[in-house]
Amino acid sequence: MLTLTPLPGIPLIQSGDDLAALILQTCEQANLQLADGDVLVLAQKIVSKAEGRLVNLAEVEPSTKAVVYAVETEKDPHLVELILRESRTVLRTRPGLIIVEHRLGFVCANAGIDHSNVAPPRTDEGEKPDDEWYLLLPEDPDASAAALRARLEAATGARLGVAIIDSHGRAWRNGTVGVCIGLSGLPGVVDLRGEPDLFGYELRVTEVGAADELAAAASLVMGQAAEGTPVVHVRGFPYPLREGSLNELLRPRERDLFR
Amino acid sequence: MLTLTPLPGIPLIQSGDDLAALILQTCEQANLQLADGDVLVLAQKIVSKAEGRLVNLAEVEPSTKAVVYAVETEKDPHLVELILRESRTVLRTRPGLIIVEHRLGFVCANAGIDHSNVAPPRTDEGEKPDDEWYLLLPEDPDASAAALRARLEAATGARLGVAIIDSHGRAWRNGTVGVCIGLSGLPGVVDLRGEPDLFGYELRVTEVGAADELAAAASLVMGQAAEGTPVVHVRGFPYPLREGSLNELLRPRERDLFR
Repeated sequence: MLTLTPLPGIPLIQSGDDLAALILQTCEQANLQLADGDVLVLAQKIVSKAEGRLVNLAEVEPSTKAVVYAVETEKDPHLVELILRESRTVLRTRPGLIIVEHRLGFVCANAGIDHSNVAPPRTDEGEKPDDEWYLLLPEDPDASAAALRARLEAATGARLGVAIIDSHGRAWRNGTVGVCIGLSGLPGVVDLRGEPDLFGYELRVTEVGAADELAAAASLVMGQAAEGTPVVHVRGFPYPLREGSLNELLRPRERDLFR
Repeated sequence: MLTLTPLPGIPLIQSGDDLAALILQTCEQANLQLADGDVLVLAQKIVSKAEGRLVNLAEVEPSTKAVVYAVETEKDPHLVELILRESRTVLRTRPGLIIVEHRLGFVCANAGIDHSNVAPPRTDEGEKPDDEWYLLLPEDPDASAAALRARLEAATGARLGVAIIDSHGRAWRNGTVGVCIGLSGLPGVVDLRGEPDLFGYELRVTEVGAADELAAAASLVMGQAAEGTPVVHVRGFPYPLREGSLNELLRPRERDLFR
Protein backbone atom coordinates (compact mmCIF):
# COMPACT_ATOMS: atom_id res chain seq x y z
CA MET A 1 0.00 0.00 0.00
CA LEU A 2 1.18 3.51 -0.83
CA THR A 3 0.00 6.30 1.44
CA LEU A 4 0.47 10.00 0.74
CA THR A 5 -0.31 12.39 3.56
CA PRO A 6 -0.08 16.17 3.17
CA LEU A 7 1.54 17.65 6.27
CA PRO A 8 -0.93 20.06 7.86
CA GLY A 9 -0.14 23.54 9.00
CA ILE A 10 3.10 24.32 7.16
CA PRO A 11 3.20 28.15 7.38
CA LEU A 12 3.99 30.54 4.54
CA ILE A 13 7.72 30.23 3.97
CA GLN A 14 10.07 33.23 4.02
CA SER A 15 13.70 33.54 2.99
CA GLY A 16 15.91 31.95 5.61
CA ASP A 17 13.24 29.70 7.12
CA ASP A 18 14.47 26.36 8.43
CA LEU A 19 12.45 23.79 6.47
CA ALA A 20 13.88 20.81 8.32
CA ALA A 21 12.87 22.27 11.68
CA LEU A 22 9.40 23.14 10.36
CA ILE A 23 8.86 19.65 8.98
CA LEU A 24 10.05 17.95 12.16
CA GLN A 25 7.81 20.20 14.24
CA THR A 26 4.82 19.57 11.97
CA CYS A 27 5.36 15.81 12.08
CA GLU A 28 5.49 15.93 15.85
CA GLN A 29 2.28 17.97 16.06
CA ALA A 30 0.59 15.56 13.65
CA ASN A 31 1.85 12.61 15.69
CA LEU A 32 3.64 11.28 12.62
CA GLN A 33 6.86 9.37 13.27
CA LEU A 34 9.20 9.26 10.31
CA ALA A 35 10.31 5.67 9.70
CA ASP A 36 12.86 3.85 7.53
CA GLY A 37 11.82 4.00 3.88
CA ASP A 38 9.60 7.06 4.19
CA VAL A 39 9.95 9.78 1.57
CA LEU A 40 9.16 13.46 2.01
CA VAL A 41 8.12 15.33 -1.10
CA LEU A 42 8.41 19.11 -1.15
CA ALA A 43 6.94 21.60 -3.57
CA GLN A 44 9.75 23.53 -5.26
CA LYS A 45 8.24 26.83 -4.18
CA ILE A 46 8.89 26.45 -0.49
CA VAL A 47 12.47 25.34 -1.09
CA SER A 48 13.06 28.32 -3.39
CA LYS A 49 11.47 30.73 -0.93
CA ALA A 50 13.49 29.39 2.00
CA GLU A 51 16.61 29.81 -0.12
CA GLY A 52 15.74 33.41 -0.95
CA ARG A 53 15.35 32.91 -4.70
CA LEU A 54 12.98 35.86 -5.11
CA VAL A 55 13.91 38.44 -7.74
CA ASN A 56 12.48 41.92 -8.15
CA LEU A 57 11.73 42.25 -11.84
CA ALA A 58 12.34 46.01 -11.74
CA GLU A 59 16.01 45.32 -11.03
CA VAL A 60 16.53 43.05 -14.05
CA GLU A 61 18.05 44.73 -17.11
CA PRO A 62 16.76 43.11 -20.34
CA SER A 63 19.38 42.23 -22.95
CA THR A 64 18.76 42.74 -26.66
CA LYS A 65 18.07 39.04 -27.02
CA ALA A 66 15.47 39.25 -24.25
CA VAL A 67 13.76 42.16 -25.98
CA VAL A 68 13.55 40.19 -29.23
CA TYR A 69 12.02 37.16 -27.50
CA ALA A 70 9.71 39.47 -25.53
CA VAL A 71 8.22 40.85 -28.74
CA GLU A 72 7.89 37.35 -30.19
CA THR A 73 6.19 35.95 -27.09
CA GLU A 74 4.34 39.08 -25.94
CA LYS A 75 5.98 38.78 -22.53
CA ASP A 76 7.61 41.34 -20.26
CA PRO A 77 11.25 41.76 -21.42
CA HIS A 78 12.46 41.83 -17.81
CA LEU A 79 10.84 38.45 -17.20
CA VAL A 80 12.23 37.10 -20.47
CA GLU A 81 15.70 38.20 -19.38
CA LEU A 82 15.26 36.25 -16.14
CA ILE A 83 14.10 33.19 -18.11
CA LEU A 84 17.13 33.39 -20.41
CA ARG A 85 19.53 33.74 -17.48
CA GLU A 86 18.11 30.53 -15.99
CA SER A 87 18.32 28.60 -19.27
CA ARG A 88 20.87 26.91 -21.51
CA THR A 89 18.85 27.29 -24.67
CA VAL A 90 15.41 28.19 -25.99
CA LEU A 91 13.62 25.26 -27.68
CA ARG A 92 10.25 26.69 -28.74
CA THR A 93 8.24 29.87 -28.33
CA ARG A 94 4.71 31.00 -28.87
CA PRO A 95 2.75 33.92 -27.43
CA GLY A 96 2.87 33.67 -23.64
CA LEU A 97 5.23 30.69 -23.63
CA ILE A 98 8.97 30.08 -23.83
CA ILE A 99 10.06 26.46 -23.61
CA VAL A 100 13.68 26.13 -22.58
CA GLU A 101 16.30 23.69 -21.56
CA HIS A 102 16.83 24.88 -18.00
CA ARG A 103 20.37 25.31 -16.68
CA LEU A 104 19.58 22.29 -14.45
CA GLY A 105 19.12 20.17 -17.61
CA PHE A 106 15.40 19.56 -17.86
CA VAL A 107 12.99 21.00 -20.39
CA CYS A 108 10.23 23.23 -19.03
CA ALA A 109 8.14 26.30 -19.69
CA ASN A 110 9.42 29.76 -18.72
CA ALA A 111 12.42 28.26 -16.88
CA GLY A 112 10.14 27.28 -14.03
CA ILE A 113 9.95 30.91 -12.92
CA ASP A 114 6.80 31.59 -10.99
CA HIS A 115 4.67 34.57 -10.12
CA SER A 116 1.63 32.95 -8.51
CA ASN A 117 1.87 32.28 -4.78
CA VAL A 118 4.77 34.72 -4.58
CA ALA A 119 4.61 37.48 -2.01
CA PRO A 120 7.22 40.25 -1.73
CA PRO A 121 10.00 39.26 0.66
CA ARG A 122 9.04 42.09 3.03
CA THR A 123 6.23 44.60 3.29
CA ASP A 124 8.01 47.58 4.82
CA GLU A 125 7.41 51.12 3.56
CA GLY A 126 10.48 51.08 1.33
CA GLU A 127 8.90 48.81 -1.20
CA LYS A 128 7.52 50.42 -4.33
CA PRO A 129 3.94 49.36 -5.01
CA ASP A 130 4.65 48.32 -8.59
CA ASP A 131 7.46 45.93 -7.74
CA GLU A 132 6.92 42.53 -9.32
CA TRP A 133 8.53 39.65 -7.50
CA TYR A 134 9.30 36.37 -9.23
CA LEU A 135 10.61 33.12 -7.83
CA LEU A 136 13.49 31.18 -9.41
CA LEU A 137 14.02 27.45 -8.97
CA PRO A 138 16.49 26.40 -6.25
CA GLU A 139 20.13 26.87 -7.21
CA ASP A 140 20.86 23.13 -6.87
CA PRO A 141 17.77 21.07 -5.96
CA ASP A 142 19.72 17.81 -5.45
CA ALA A 143 21.88 19.61 -2.90
CA SER A 144 18.81 21.16 -1.26
CA ALA A 145 17.25 17.70 -0.97
CA ALA A 146 20.46 16.19 0.40
CA ALA A 147 20.85 18.90 3.04
CA LEU A 148 17.26 18.52 4.16
CA ARG A 149 17.54 14.75 4.24
CA ALA A 150 20.70 14.89 6.35
CA ARG A 151 18.92 17.06 8.91
CA LEU A 152 15.81 14.86 9.00
CA GLU A 153 17.80 11.63 9.22
CA ALA A 154 19.99 13.02 12.00
CA ALA A 155 16.92 14.06 13.98
CA THR A 156 14.94 10.87 13.51
CA GLY A 157 17.49 8.10 12.97
CA ALA A 158 15.37 6.90 10.06
CA ARG A 159 16.65 6.18 6.52
CA LEU A 160 14.64 8.63 4.41
CA GLY A 161 14.26 9.94 0.89
CA VAL A 162 13.62 13.56 -0.04
CA ALA A 163 12.24 14.73 -3.39
CA ILE A 164 11.66 18.27 -4.63
CA ILE A 165 8.98 18.57 -7.30
CA ASP A 166 7.53 21.05 -9.73
CA SER A 167 4.60 20.94 -12.18
CA HIS A 168 5.59 20.66 -15.82
CA GLY A 169 3.64 20.71 -19.04
CA ARG A 170 4.40 17.92 -21.46
CA ALA A 171 4.81 17.32 -25.14
CA TRP A 172 1.68 15.79 -26.70
CA ARG A 173 -0.59 15.83 -23.65
CA ASN A 174 -2.72 18.46 -21.92
CA GLY A 175 -2.34 19.36 -18.28
CA THR A 176 0.66 19.69 -16.03
CA VAL A 177 1.96 16.82 -13.92
CA GLY A 178 4.31 16.75 -10.97
CA VAL A 179 7.91 15.90 -11.89
CA CYS A 180 10.98 15.55 -9.76
CA ILE A 181 13.57 18.35 -10.06
CA GLY A 182 15.84 17.27 -7.21
CA LEU A 183 16.20 14.22 -5.00
CA SER A 184 18.29 12.56 -2.35
CA GLY A 185 18.16 9.06 -0.96
CA LEU A 186 15.84 7.49 -3.50
CA PRO A 187 16.23 6.25 -7.08
CA GLY A 188 15.42 8.61 -9.93
CA VAL A 189 15.07 5.79 -12.45
CA VAL A 190 14.66 2.11 -11.56
CA ASP A 191 16.14 -0.31 -14.06
CA LEU A 192 14.02 -3.45 -14.34
CA ARG A 193 15.84 -4.77 -17.40
CA GLY A 194 16.76 -8.39 -16.91
CA GLU A 195 13.92 -9.04 -14.45
CA PRO A 196 11.64 -11.86 -15.52
CA ASP A 197 8.07 -11.04 -16.45
CA LEU A 198 5.05 -13.18 -15.53
CA PHE A 199 5.92 -15.76 -18.19
CA GLY A 200 9.65 -15.79 -17.77
CA TYR A 201 10.45 -13.47 -20.67
CA GLU A 202 13.16 -11.04 -19.78
CA LEU A 203 11.99 -7.44 -19.57
CA ARG A 204 14.32 -5.65 -21.92
CA VAL A 205 13.36 -2.03 -22.07
CA THR A 206 11.72 -1.27 -18.78
CA GLU A 207 13.29 1.64 -17.02
CA VAL A 208 10.77 3.20 -14.69
CA GLY A 209 10.84 6.92 -13.91
CA ALA A 210 10.09 6.11 -10.28
CA ALA A 211 10.87 9.53 -8.81
CA ASP A 212 8.66 11.18 -11.43
CA GLU A 213 5.82 8.76 -10.69
CA LEU A 214 6.22 9.65 -7.03
CA ALA A 215 6.26 13.36 -7.90
CA ALA A 216 3.02 13.03 -9.85
CA ALA A 217 1.40 11.19 -6.96
CA ALA A 218 2.48 13.83 -4.46
CA SER A 219 1.44 16.64 -6.77
CA LEU A 220 -2.04 15.15 -6.86
CA VAL A 221 -2.43 15.58 -3.11
CA MET A 222 -0.66 18.95 -2.88
CA GLY A 223 -3.20 20.80 -4.98
CA GLN A 224 -2.32 24.01 -6.77
CA ALA A 225 -4.55 26.72 -5.44
CA ALA A 226 -5.31 28.42 -2.12
CA GLU A 227 -5.56 25.25 -0.05
CA GLY A 228 -2.23 23.92 -1.27
CA THR A 229 -0.10 21.83 1.08
CA PRO A 230 3.56 21.97 0.07
CA VAL A 231 4.95 18.94 1.94
CA VAL A 232 3.71 15.39 1.48
CA HIS A 233 4.74 12.40 3.55
CA VAL A 234 4.94 9.14 1.57
CA ARG A 235 4.91 5.69 3.10
CA GLY A 236 5.23 2.56 1.00
CA PHE A 237 7.49 3.75 -1.82
CA PRO A 238 7.90 0.35 -3.47
CA TYR A 239 11.53 0.41 -4.61
CA PRO A 240 14.60 0.09 -2.39
CA LEU A 241 15.98 3.44 -1.31
CA ARG A 242 19.49 4.25 -2.53
CA GLU A 243 21.48 7.33 -3.41
CA GLY A 244 19.98 9.02 -6.47
CA SER A 245 20.15 12.21 -8.50
CA LEU A 246 18.18 14.34 -10.92
CA ASN A 247 20.60 13.38 -13.68
CA GLU A 248 19.14 9.87 -13.88
CA LEU A 249 15.89 11.41 -15.07
CA LEU A 250 17.38 13.64 -17.75
CA ARG A 251 17.68 12.23 -21.24
CA PRO A 252 20.87 13.54 -22.80
CA ARG A 253 20.17 15.90 -25.69
CA GLU A 254 21.90 13.64 -28.18
CA ARG A 255 19.63 10.72 -27.29
CA ASP A 256 16.44 12.78 -27.36
CA LEU A 257 14.29 12.54 -30.48
CA PHE A 258 12.13 15.53 -29.54
CA ARG A 259 14.43 18.45 -28.82
CA MET B 1 -4.74 11.53 2.45
CA LEU B 2 -4.39 9.50 -0.73
CA THR B 3 -4.21 5.74 -0.37
CA LEU B 4 -3.35 3.33 -3.18
CA THR B 5 -3.91 -0.36 -2.49
CA PRO B 6 -3.03 -3.05 -5.02
CA LEU B 7 -5.79 -5.66 -5.09
CA PRO B 8 -4.29 -8.99 -4.11
CA GLY B 9 -4.82 -12.24 -5.95
CA ILE B 10 -6.08 -11.09 -9.36
CA PRO B 11 -5.44 -14.22 -11.47
CA LEU B 12 -3.85 -14.28 -14.92
CA ILE B 13 -6.46 -12.90 -17.28
CA GLN B 14 -7.65 -14.79 -20.39
CA SER B 15 -9.79 -13.64 -23.28
CA GLY B 16 -13.42 -13.43 -22.21
CA ASP B 17 -12.73 -13.12 -18.49
CA ASP B 18 -15.19 -10.95 -16.56
CA LEU B 19 -13.02 -8.24 -14.99
CA ALA B 20 -15.88 -6.64 -13.07
CA ALA B 21 -16.77 -9.94 -11.42
CA LEU B 22 -13.11 -10.62 -10.61
CA ILE B 23 -12.63 -7.19 -9.06
CA LEU B 24 -15.81 -7.44 -6.98
CA GLN B 25 -14.81 -10.89 -5.78
CA THR B 26 -11.30 -9.73 -4.93
CA CYS B 27 -12.60 -6.71 -3.03
CA GLU B 28 -14.93 -8.96 -1.06
CA GLN B 29 -12.12 -11.38 -0.19
CA ALA B 30 -9.89 -8.47 0.83
CA ASN B 31 -12.72 -7.03 2.92
CA LEU B 32 -12.59 -3.83 0.91
CA GLN B 33 -15.88 -2.00 0.46
CA LEU B 34 -15.98 0.32 -2.52
CA ALA B 35 -17.25 3.75 -1.47
CA ASP B 36 -18.33 6.97 -3.17
CA GLY B 37 -15.33 8.73 -4.68
CA ASP B 38 -13.12 5.64 -4.95
CA VAL B 39 -11.25 5.08 -8.20
CA LEU B 40 -10.09 1.76 -9.61
CA VAL B 41 -7.03 1.86 -11.82
CA LEU B 42 -6.40 -1.04 -14.18
CA ALA B 43 -3.28 -1.93 -16.12
CA GLN B 44 -4.04 -1.86 -19.84
CA LYS B 45 -2.79 -5.42 -20.23
CA ILE B 46 -5.54 -7.11 -18.32
CA VAL B 47 -8.22 -5.12 -20.14
CA SER B 48 -6.66 -5.99 -23.50
CA LYS B 49 -6.36 -9.66 -22.56
CA ALA B 50 -9.94 -9.85 -21.33
CA GLU B 51 -11.03 -8.29 -24.63
CA GLY B 52 -9.07 -10.83 -26.64
CA ARG B 53 -6.65 -8.36 -28.22
CA LEU B 54 -3.92 -10.97 -28.75
CA VAL B 55 -2.51 -11.26 -32.25
CA ASN B 56 -0.40 -14.09 -33.63
CA LEU B 57 2.45 -12.38 -35.45
CA ALA B 58 2.75 -15.28 -37.91
CA GLU B 59 -0.67 -14.36 -39.29
CA VAL B 60 0.22 -10.71 -40.00
CA GLU B 61 1.25 -9.94 -43.61
CA PRO B 62 3.79 -7.08 -43.74
CA SER B 63 3.11 -4.30 -46.22
CA THR B 64 5.91 -2.72 -48.26
CA LYS B 65 5.86 0.28 -45.92
CA ALA B 66 6.26 -2.05 -42.93
CA VAL B 67 9.26 -3.73 -44.57
CA VAL B 68 10.93 -0.36 -45.13
CA TYR B 69 10.41 0.71 -41.51
CA ALA B 70 11.52 -2.75 -40.37
CA VAL B 71 14.89 -2.32 -42.06
CA GLU B 72 15.24 1.22 -40.69
CA THR B 73 14.40 0.16 -37.13
CA GLU B 74 15.85 -3.37 -37.17
CA LYS B 75 12.49 -4.73 -36.06
CA ASP B 76 10.43 -7.72 -37.25
CA PRO B 77 8.40 -6.59 -40.29
CA HIS B 78 5.34 -8.45 -39.01
CA LEU B 79 5.49 -6.51 -35.77
CA VAL B 80 6.05 -3.24 -37.65
CA GLU B 81 2.96 -3.99 -39.73
CA LEU B 82 0.95 -4.41 -36.52
CA ILE B 83 2.34 -1.12 -35.20
CA LEU B 84 1.40 0.71 -38.40
CA ARG B 85 -2.13 -0.73 -38.37
CA GLU B 86 -2.61 0.63 -34.85
CA SER B 87 -1.25 4.09 -35.71
CA ARG B 88 -2.25 7.26 -37.52
CA THR B 89 1.27 8.34 -38.30
CA VAL B 90 4.92 7.65 -37.51
CA LEU B 91 6.64 10.54 -35.72
CA ARG B 92 10.19 9.27 -35.14
CA THR B 93 12.21 6.11 -35.54
CA ARG B 94 15.50 4.77 -34.40
CA PRO B 95 16.82 1.20 -34.13
CA GLY B 96 14.43 -0.75 -31.91
CA LEU B 97 11.93 2.08 -31.60
CA ILE B 98 9.03 3.50 -33.58
CA ILE B 99 7.26 6.46 -32.01
CA VAL B 100 3.77 6.91 -33.39
CA GLU B 101 0.60 8.84 -32.98
CA HIS B 102 -1.66 5.97 -31.96
CA ARG B 103 -5.09 5.64 -33.57
CA LEU B 104 -6.47 6.56 -30.12
CA GLY B 105 -4.71 9.94 -30.41
CA PHE B 106 -1.81 9.76 -27.97
CA VAL B 107 1.89 9.56 -28.81
CA CYS B 108 3.69 6.42 -27.69
CA ALA B 109 6.39 3.92 -28.60
CA ASN B 110 5.57 0.91 -30.77
CA ALA B 111 1.82 1.70 -30.67
CA GLY B 112 1.69 0.30 -27.14
CA ILE B 113 1.98 -3.24 -28.50
CA ASP B 114 3.42 -5.55 -25.93
CA HIS B 115 5.19 -8.87 -25.89
CA SER B 116 6.25 -9.19 -22.25
CA ASN B 117 3.70 -10.75 -19.89
CA VAL B 118 1.86 -12.15 -22.90
CA ALA B 119 1.06 -15.87 -22.92
CA PRO B 120 -0.52 -17.62 -25.90
CA PRO B 121 -4.32 -17.56 -25.67
CA ARG B 122 -4.40 -21.36 -25.31
CA THR B 123 -1.83 -24.12 -24.93
CA ASP B 124 -3.51 -26.94 -26.83
CA GLU B 125 -1.53 -29.11 -29.22
CA GLY B 126 -2.59 -27.11 -32.28
CA GLU B 127 -0.30 -24.21 -31.45
CA LYS B 128 3.00 -24.04 -33.26
CA PRO B 129 5.92 -23.60 -30.89
CA ASP B 130 7.32 -20.60 -32.77
CA ASP B 131 4.13 -18.58 -32.67
CA GLU B 132 4.73 -15.10 -31.32
CA TRP B 133 1.76 -13.53 -29.61
CA TYR B 134 1.48 -9.78 -29.17
CA LEU B 135 -1.07 -7.75 -27.29
CA LEU B 136 -2.77 -4.68 -28.77
CA LEU B 137 -4.27 -1.89 -26.69
CA PRO B 138 -8.03 -2.09 -26.04
CA GLU B 139 -10.18 -1.11 -29.02
CA ASP B 140 -11.77 1.81 -27.10
CA PRO B 141 -10.37 2.23 -23.58
CA ASP B 142 -12.88 4.94 -22.57
CA ALA B 143 -15.68 2.52 -23.45
CA SER B 144 -13.94 -0.32 -21.59
CA ALA B 145 -13.66 1.90 -18.52
CA ALA B 146 -17.29 3.00 -18.79
CA ALA B 147 -18.57 -0.58 -19.09
CA LEU B 148 -16.53 -1.71 -16.11
CA ARG B 149 -17.63 1.28 -14.07
CA ALA B 150 -21.30 0.64 -14.83
CA ARG B 151 -20.95 -2.93 -13.58
CA LEU B 152 -19.08 -1.92 -10.43
CA GLU B 153 -21.47 0.93 -9.62
CA ALA B 154 -24.50 -1.28 -10.16
CA ALA B 155 -23.08 -3.91 -7.82
CA THR B 156 -21.96 -1.56 -5.08
CA GLY B 157 -24.23 1.49 -5.30
CA ALA B 158 -21.11 3.66 -5.00
CA ARG B 159 -20.17 6.53 -7.33
CA LEU B 160 -16.81 5.38 -8.74
CA GLY B 161 -14.15 6.29 -11.25
CA VAL B 162 -12.30 3.83 -13.47
CA ALA B 163 -8.99 4.54 -15.20
CA ILE B 164 -7.03 2.33 -17.59
CA ILE B 165 -3.32 3.05 -17.69
CA ASP B 166 -0.20 2.17 -19.61
CA SER B 167 3.49 3.04 -19.19
CA HIS B 168 4.84 5.58 -21.66
CA GLY B 169 8.25 6.96 -22.34
CA ARG B 170 8.52 10.73 -22.55
CA ALA B 171 10.22 13.40 -24.53
CA TRP B 172 13.25 14.82 -22.67
CA ARG B 173 13.22 12.54 -19.63
CA ASN B 174 14.42 9.00 -18.91
CA GLY B 175 12.17 6.27 -17.61
CA THR B 176 8.56 5.39 -18.29
CA VAL B 177 5.68 6.71 -16.22
CA GLY B 178 2.10 5.57 -15.93
CA VAL B 179 -0.33 7.55 -18.09
CA CYS B 180 -4.06 7.29 -18.51
CA ILE B 181 -5.27 5.82 -21.82
CA GLY B 182 -8.95 5.53 -20.94
CA LEU B 183 -11.22 6.72 -18.17
CA SER B 184 -14.77 6.98 -16.96
CA GLY B 185 -16.27 8.90 -14.09
CA LEU B 186 -13.29 11.10 -13.25
CA PRO B 187 -11.75 14.22 -14.77
CA GLY B 188 -8.90 13.81 -17.24
CA VAL B 189 -7.76 17.42 -16.84
CA VAL B 190 -8.76 19.71 -13.98
CA ASP B 191 -8.98 23.39 -14.87
CA LEU B 192 -7.84 25.57 -11.97
CA ARG B 193 -7.72 28.77 -14.01
CA GLY B 194 -9.54 31.53 -12.20
CA GLU B 195 -8.93 30.04 -8.75
CA PRO B 196 -7.14 32.42 -6.40
CA ASP B 197 -3.65 31.51 -5.27
CA LEU B 198 -2.31 32.03 -1.75
CA PHE B 199 -1.95 35.77 -2.30
CA GLY B 200 -5.11 36.38 -4.25
CA TYR B 201 -3.49 36.39 -7.69
CA GLU B 202 -5.61 34.54 -10.17
CA LEU B 203 -4.04 31.30 -11.43
CA ARG B 204 -4.06 31.76 -15.17
CA VAL B 205 -2.45 28.76 -16.76
CA THR B 206 -2.96 25.90 -14.37
CA GLU B 207 -4.58 22.93 -15.96
CA VAL B 208 -3.66 19.81 -14.06
CA GLY B 209 -3.38 16.44 -15.80
CA ALA B 210 -5.12 14.84 -12.84
CA ALA B 211 -5.85 11.46 -14.44
CA ASP B 212 -2.22 11.19 -15.56
CA GLU B 213 -1.00 12.05 -12.06
CA LEU B 214 -3.28 9.33 -10.75
CA ALA B 215 -1.98 6.92 -13.40
CA ALA B 216 1.61 7.59 -12.38
CA ALA B 217 0.75 7.02 -8.74
CA ALA B 218 -1.01 3.74 -9.49
CA SER B 219 1.80 2.63 -11.79
CA LEU B 220 4.21 3.09 -8.92
CA VAL B 221 2.39 0.52 -6.81
CA MET B 222 1.62 -1.87 -9.67
CA GLY B 223 5.24 -2.68 -10.40
CA GLN B 224 6.33 -3.96 -13.79
CA ALA B 225 7.86 -7.36 -13.29
CA ALA B 226 6.87 -10.78 -11.97
CA GLU B 227 5.13 -9.54 -8.83
CA GLY B 228 2.96 -7.08 -10.71
CA THR B 229 -0.53 -6.33 -9.44
CA PRO B 230 -2.74 -5.05 -12.26
CA VAL B 231 -5.59 -3.43 -10.29
CA VAL B 232 -5.13 -0.63 -7.77
CA HIS B 233 -7.80 0.76 -5.51
CA VAL B 234 -7.50 4.49 -4.86
CA ARG B 235 -9.13 6.33 -2.01
CA GLY B 236 -8.82 10.06 -1.56
CA PHE B 237 -8.65 11.27 -5.18
CA PRO B 238 -8.73 14.97 -4.40
CA TYR B 239 -10.84 16.38 -7.23
CA PRO B 240 -14.61 16.03 -7.61
CA LEU B 241 -15.60 13.05 -9.76
CA ARG B 242 -17.40 13.87 -13.01
CA GLU B 243 -17.74 12.40 -16.45
CA GLY B 244 -14.41 12.50 -18.25
CA SER B 245 -12.64 11.20 -21.32
CA LEU B 246 -9.21 10.47 -22.74
CA ASN B 247 -9.66 13.35 -25.19
CA GLU B 248 -9.19 15.91 -22.41
CA LEU B 249 -5.62 14.67 -22.03
CA LEU B 250 -4.69 14.78 -25.71
CA ARG B 251 -3.17 17.98 -27.03
CA PRO B 252 -4.41 18.55 -30.56
CA ARG B 253 -1.64 18.20 -33.11
CA GLU B 254 -2.00 21.83 -34.27
CA ARG B 255 -1.41 23.09 -30.72
CA ASP B 256 1.55 20.79 -30.07
CA LEU B 257 5.01 22.32 -30.41
CA PHE B 258 6.78 18.93 -30.31
CA ARG B 259 5.22 16.74 -32.95
